[in-house]
Amino acid sequence: MSEIHGFAVHAAGAHLLAYKYDPGELETHEVEIKISHCGVCHSDVHLIDNDWGISKYPFIPGHEIVGTVVGVGSGVKDRTMGERVGVGWQADSCGICEWCRQGQEHLCAKSQPTCVGRNGGFADRVRVNSRFAIPIPTSLESENAAPLMCGGITVYAPLMNYGVRPSSRVGVIGIGGLGHLGVQFAKAFGAEVTAFSTSKDKEAEAKELGAHEFVNTRDTGALKKVAGSFDFLLSTVSADQDWQAYVSALRPKGTFCIVGASPSPLQIQGASLIHSQKAIAGSNTGSPHELSEMLSVAARHGVKAVTEKFAMAKANDAVTKVKKNQIRYRAVLTN
Amino acid sequence: MSEIHGFAVHAAGAHLLAYKYDPGELETHEVEIKISHCGVCHSDVHLIDNDWGISKYPFIPGHEIVGTVVGVGSGVKDRTMGERVGVGWQADSCGICEWCRQGQEHLCAKSQPTCVGRNGGFADRVRVNSRFAIPIPTSLESENAAPLMCGGITVYAPLMNYGVRPSSRVGVIGIGGLGHLGVQFAKAFGAEVTAFSTSKDKEAEAKELGAHEFVNTRDTGALKKVAGSFDFLLSTVSADQDWQAYVSALRPKGTFCIVGASPSPLQIQGASLIHSQKAIAGSNTGSPHELSEMLSVAARHGVKAVTEKFAMAKANDAVTKVKKNQIRYRAVLTN
Repeated sequence: MSEIHGFAVHAAGAHLLAYKYDPGELETHEVEIKISHCGVCHSDVHLIDNDWGISKYPFIPGHEIVGTVVGVGSGVKDRTMGERVGVGWQADSCGICEWCRQGQEHLCAKSQPTCVGRNGGFADRVRVNSRFAIPIPTSLESENAAPLMCGGITVYAPLMNYGVRPSSRVGVIGIGGLGHLGVQFAKAFGAEVTAFSTSKDKEAEAKELGAHEFVNTRDTGALKKVAGSFDFLLSTVSADQDWQAYVSALRPKGTFCIVGASPSPLQIQGASLIHSQKAIAGSNTGSPHELSEMLSVAARHGVKAVTEKFAMAKANDAVTKVKKNQIRYRAVLTN
Repeated sequence: MSEIHGFAVHAAGAHLLAYKYDPGELETHEVEIKISHCGVCHSDVHLIDNDWGISKYPFIPGHEIVGTVVGVGSGVKDRTMGERVGVGWQADSCGICEWCRQGQEHLCAKSQPTCVGRNGGFADRVRVNSRFAIPIPTSLESENAAPLMCGGITVYAPLMNYGVRPSSRVGVIGIGGLGHLGVQFAKAFGAEVTAFSTSKDKEAEAKELGAHEFVNTRDTGALKKVAGSFDFLLSTVSADQDWQAYVSALRPKGTFCIVGASPSPLQIQGASLIHSQKAIAGSNTGSPHELSEMLSVAARHGVKAVTEKFAMAKANDAVTKVKKNQIRYRAVLTN
């Protein structure tokens, strides 16, 4: 196969530069994907800036990939040439540990993120273990589906794992790239959905996306008013928050689940968890099986990312706007 | 009926004094119980000292009661004269809210603790709503069963609610009144059990109670060595702890559950919960149905409180020893 062309970052916080690499022989378990779309996730920005100390430069960011299978390794049984597939946060895993064997590959200790120590989706092509190339249902547009591969699964998995159902009172905190998908998925679960945002001007849009109620989190009185109201709160923001107020907003047996990491530690009075059997949880993307399930739900319920398109060559512009929180709600690069 | 005699506290931190009260007419839904045994729980000490600001003086403490039904209200269908029953933290609940109706009476907002605004079990008799008088299986000795009514259910309920099973790696933190029951119940669930204690000298006893492993928590190296080891950690201590170390000790999808409230807030890095889908939870006693289930499990598995007996008239001595953490493992008052 020929060289892969994309845009790479060479040092923490640097601009993306045109970059090419030789992918070598296609491994027996791999597929090669011709990329049509790639979402820009806040995690890409964190990797670009090496916020988590795990970045390996140079690398091509991008882990919300949609494209077409153009190469199939000799051992691959699950994918065929020409299929439209998506790739999310992970590109490979060991395949033999207890987590891989129970279909929870995202918890594999040796799982390989798509753009850490590998090159991701801000490119013309990418290669992944075929198990991590997930077919996209026909009714989903590639542009709207790409952000589901990370943003979508990140909010879908906790709703599913914590048993959200039509009788659940769900709150989605932060109406951005993740939250606007969280509202839609929570609605797909049939739940009563409340959107929490610091931006009063997002109320109308949140309600269009499926929220029944809106809470302006800059209004501390409003947060107090919903004490004891929610079975499940999904926090998509990565800023420090009034954790105790959100624990108070839970009903008995309620769970406050975070998918965004705050700079400071969470601070919670133990007694406030004990009294009504509450919990604080974290959740992190999902497995290939869960991705497939999520895409199917998205297709049937019309869940889609609201996107702003950029040509792949304008990746720096997209990253800059993502950094400035100027995207409503997800930037998508197209080839 | 005649006056009830017991030992009451009249002000925060005061000694118990002989006390009597007229219980009035037996309500239609109540039973009267002639008390044979009553455990002394740390919660009694907290109520005596008004640590939680909810105590109503004067009151008779005691909420780990075993005795015999000597009075049955005209509307009671579930209990009969002469039955041996136990009473735990709760003596009544509204009976009509969503929590009561789903058999989760301990989460009822109007639930009535046995010795807050009522008189408890450091007495010759007590009255409760018959729904909260739980039959004690024949094979359990009253002295060993009494502490199960609060201490036992407090550790049993989370093991059950969080799905502990024979393949689970469970850690019980703090080997005292609650923890020594937690180890036994975790063993009854078939789990691999590790006891965590600050007292190296408790290792042999913890292993006799069913622990497979022992971790001395004064040895920070030992705590680091068990990183990534546990599916479920049950913390029975009410001192501040190295929360982050315990979160690190969890396996993916693991839960750290507290049943003792610490003075300072829990401090946890959000990212440490997100990465491997971990959770921190609180748990608080259990419902009448869960009490009944727990007693049945205790009877079949030989779970019993290790007790130190005191005559009811020596209640002050028992409370003093409990305050000083000198009891191994549960003080029980007898009539």
